[in-house]
Amino acid sequence: MRELIRPQLPGGFRDYSASEMLARLEMLEKIRRVYERFGFDPLATPGVERLETLASEDSAGIIYELARLRGTRPLPRSEDSQRIALRFDLTVPLARYFAANVDVLPKPFKRWQLGNVHRGEKPQAGRYCEFAQCDIDTVGSSSPLADAEIICVMYATLTELGVTRFMIRVNNRKILNGLPALAGFTEELIVDVLRLLDKTDKIGIDAVIHELTRPPKPLYKREELFAIPEEPTGHSDMPTDSGYGLGLGEAAGNAIRQFINIRGSVQEVLDQLRSTARGNALISEGANELQQIAEYLTASGVPPEAWCIDLGVARGLGYYTGPVFETTLLDLPSFGSIFSGGRYDGLVARFMSDPVPATGSSIGVDRLFAALKELECVRMRTTATQVLVSIMDPGHVTDYLGIAAELRSARINTSLYLGEDRAFKAQLAFAARQCIPVVVICGGNEFAASAVTIKDMGARKQVTVPRKDLTLTVRNILDARTET
Amino acid sequence: MRELIRPQLPGGFRDYSASEMLARLEMLEKIRRVYERFGFDPLATPGVERLETLASEDSAGIIYELARLRGTRPLPRSEDSQRIALRFDLTVPLARYFAANVDVLPKPFKRWQLGNVHRGEKPQAGRYCEFAQCDIDTVGSSSPLADAEIICVMYATLTELGVTRFMIRVNNRKILNGLPALAGFTEELIVDVLRLLDKTDKIGIDAVIHELTRPPKPLYKREELFAIPEEPTGHSDMPTDSGYGLGLGEAAGNAIRQFINIRGSVQEVLDQLRSTARGNALISEGANELQQIAEYLTASGVPPEAWCIDLGVARGLGYYTGPVFETTLLDLPSFGSIFSGGRYDGLVARFMSDPVPATGSSIGVDRLFAALKELECVRMRTTATQVLVSIMDPGHVTDYLGIAAELRSARINTSLYLGEDRAFKAQLAFAARQCIPVVVICGGNEFAASAVTIKDMGARKQVTVPRKDLTLTVRNILDARTET
Repeated sequence: MRELIRPQLPGGFRDYSASEMLARLEMLEKIRRVYERFGFDPLATPGVERLETLASEDSAGIIYELARLRGTRPLPRSEDSQRIALRFDLTVPLARYFAANVDVLPKPFKRWQLGNVHRGEKPQAGRYCEFAQCDIDTVGSSSPLADAEIICVMYATLTELGVTRFMIRVNNRKILNGLPALAGFTEELIVDVLRLLDKTDKIGIDAVIHELTRPPKPLYKREELFAIPEEPTGHSDMPTDSGYGLGLGEAAGNAIRQFINIRGSVQEVLDQLRSTARGNALISEGANELQQIAEYLTASGVPPEAWCIDLGVARGLGYYTGPVFETTLLDLPSFGSIFSGGRYDGLVARFMSDPVPATGSSIGVDRLFAALKELECVRMRTTATQVLVSIMDPGHVTDYLGIAAELRSARINTSLYLGEDRAFKAQLAFAARQCIPVVVICGGNEFAASAVTIKDMGARKQVTVPRKDLTLTVRNILDARTET
Repeated sequence: MRELIRPQLPGGFRDYSASEMLARLEMLEKIRRVYERFGFDPLATPGVERLETLASEDSAGIIYELARLRGTRPLPRSEDSQRIALRFDLTVPLARYFAANVDVLPKPFKRWQLGNVHRGEKPQAGRYCEFAQCDIDTVGSSSPLADAEIICVMYATLTELGVTRFMIRVNNRKILNGLPALAGFTEELIVDVLRLLDKTDKIGIDAVIHELTRPPKPLYKREELFAIPEEPTGHSDMPTDSGYGLGLGEAAGNAIRQFINIRGSVQEVLDQLRSTARGNALISEGANELQQIAEYLTASGVPPEAWCIDLGVARGLGYYTGPVFETTLLDLPSFGSIFSGGRYDGLVARFMSDPVPATGSSIGVDRLFAALKELECVRMRTTATQVLVSIMDPGHVTDYLGIAAELRSARINTSLYLGEDRAFKAQLAFAARQCIPVVVICGGNEFAASAVTIKDMGARKQVTVPRKDLTLTVRNILDARTET
């Protein structure tokens, strides 16, 4: 006897059941409608890119390379010289696509994209090696109008999804890039400082300041501080406790703390920021952009309670150059940001010499879906099937097929019972377990009287009507359900 | 200066532009509606499975294995012991999913699934290493009702997509499995005979009979005949000319030719088949199943001109065990089958000891989409954007934002012009090139008069209306367009 293969998923990967998919597809359809309402058109790029396209400091350690197999061994390189790998986000492929098609694309190029991405991270609870992103990006506009539009889409999307309590937190990398001059530390450290600031939400401001100010490793090298020797973790949330900090002075620590603690309404934050940072050109420029964005959001009808300036928002990725965005669900802060992005004016420059400004934002689809389930903003259904046609008398199968065909031609989702257990009880149990709202029942009495019996599973009652009234009766039951 | 990376796709992979995606998503939405109308619910499984799950004779040579990279080198096996690979179809993952969740799934389990699959074949014109499939399968029913339902879905899907001239060609593996006894050759050769018969459409019956009857390789081994040493090709369409045949006798060749030449209406084919194959139990059983399917299709309203029995349909894959289906577009026969499947009662048995019957069919999404474009059954649009709000006076940007917000709240897809070239001519050219049907124009005159000018790009005319009539006027232009 042949040995059975365990029907097991690899660690870090997951299936989506019918009920999850039905709700997920509804959510994605709503997102798509909002994206297109703002003038973003769909794009699809393959899940696979040349390794060279993907490789960068941001992607170190998370890329899956592909190798064709012959039998059980990978093909030797010489025969298969093209090195290809799975994308880890949709932004790098967008930059590649824009550069490759720059001559034919509209300027700016506004696209939305839904797709799976892969990151070879160590699987953790709620973190998978394959997950979906649903992005919007505007490539080719340097105007804060484009950034404001992205924030508008974020607001409109969450509103369309029925989320009421959320906060879009906006910052500007230019402001953060003014920190070294403001706080008095070397510019080389800015990336590490931002990575630590990014963790303020998780570990608190005191722990961050502690990390910033405790002594650095002797002969400090940045790569070592953040490298994790045993297991590549890519975008890990927790800092490795290397026992060393960044070695900023107390004055710098205090200045950073004071900076992070600037809070209040958008106008209050901008005013405080300008008075704190008088003469710092980067901070002024960043603040002016946010001022413009604020004006545009107001004109677009985004209410002030939906967004704020949060100077602690840094965004981990290295490629951001201007405004950055994160979105927190106020009732589920532990979910982290479910819709994030920012301006990345340098990314397309990997592929073409002309500078190409770009800005965008990305939904972590799985995280958002999990949140919407928690918030009861999605309709969970067991099945899309509305009617089960039961088989009372196998001699009348062709009649049941005719009934099913008639209901389907009225666009009613209909299943003929195909279970191996033909007992009527089993058929009703099948419908009940699948939450199919209507069961059509036709036995000897019904056939003799040219009638059908229609059972409303929710109301637990049934009616027998003339055969010609089949579709109308079913439609009425379904419509009554929708109304309640 | 940093070296630029070529913005190039790997060979065998492709992008889908906005206009392709808009039409493709419309097509997929129609397919989904039909699938759900027949009681199939969505499922998603990851693109990645354990290598052990996927590896089989059918998949030899086409599987991409994944390796996590550290820097530019793959992680050594010891650290990363789980061998994982990209799926090459959606059927094997379905079998894995069913076996893993057998206790909680409805019986039968009817699911549809849309997903990308990967095959590491040598790229050829029109053949890609990544492509989408959109499948329906019924797992857990051995009834010909389930097979007939699959055929009904195939018919309803193509009809919903606006295809009128197609032929669903049906056969039964059981009939084909009766061939050795009928034609007098050894059962060991059946797989190879079927692979050759599968090529009848492409190379003609004479060439097939020639291959069947010319002398075999001395010390013939099946693996060698079909192995292709230099390049793994998996499901290649052309037989390798090894210089050897299968060595069937002339009598066997004639019997096969006679068998393949049985044609006519469904009833004529079944009658001829029964008289040719009197006493052959396999052929009788297969014919009886097709007889039942015919009866069910008639009762379901599938017209006789939409399908036929074609004894030459074999389906390459090894796992089929009963009825098999292919679909030819009568106006595009060279596209090959765009919707194919069959019964595979043995596949789930790889993962569980209980026998689990299953039947299904799969759309080659890219091939179908290419065909629908040829047949002009898809609506090709440049963009989903319906209105461009032009920026005549940058001092009034917040007014333009208000106009865009109002149109969007009426669910009209609206873009504010964000191009760097602010000349009015450039803005109109942008709308014309993108085929955006309506442009809103507001300059000094309009603002002074609380009016807006609305340009109907298709009709090449414009009207100036009171600002409060903005949405209504735009809506009327859009509705008039839809009607024509």
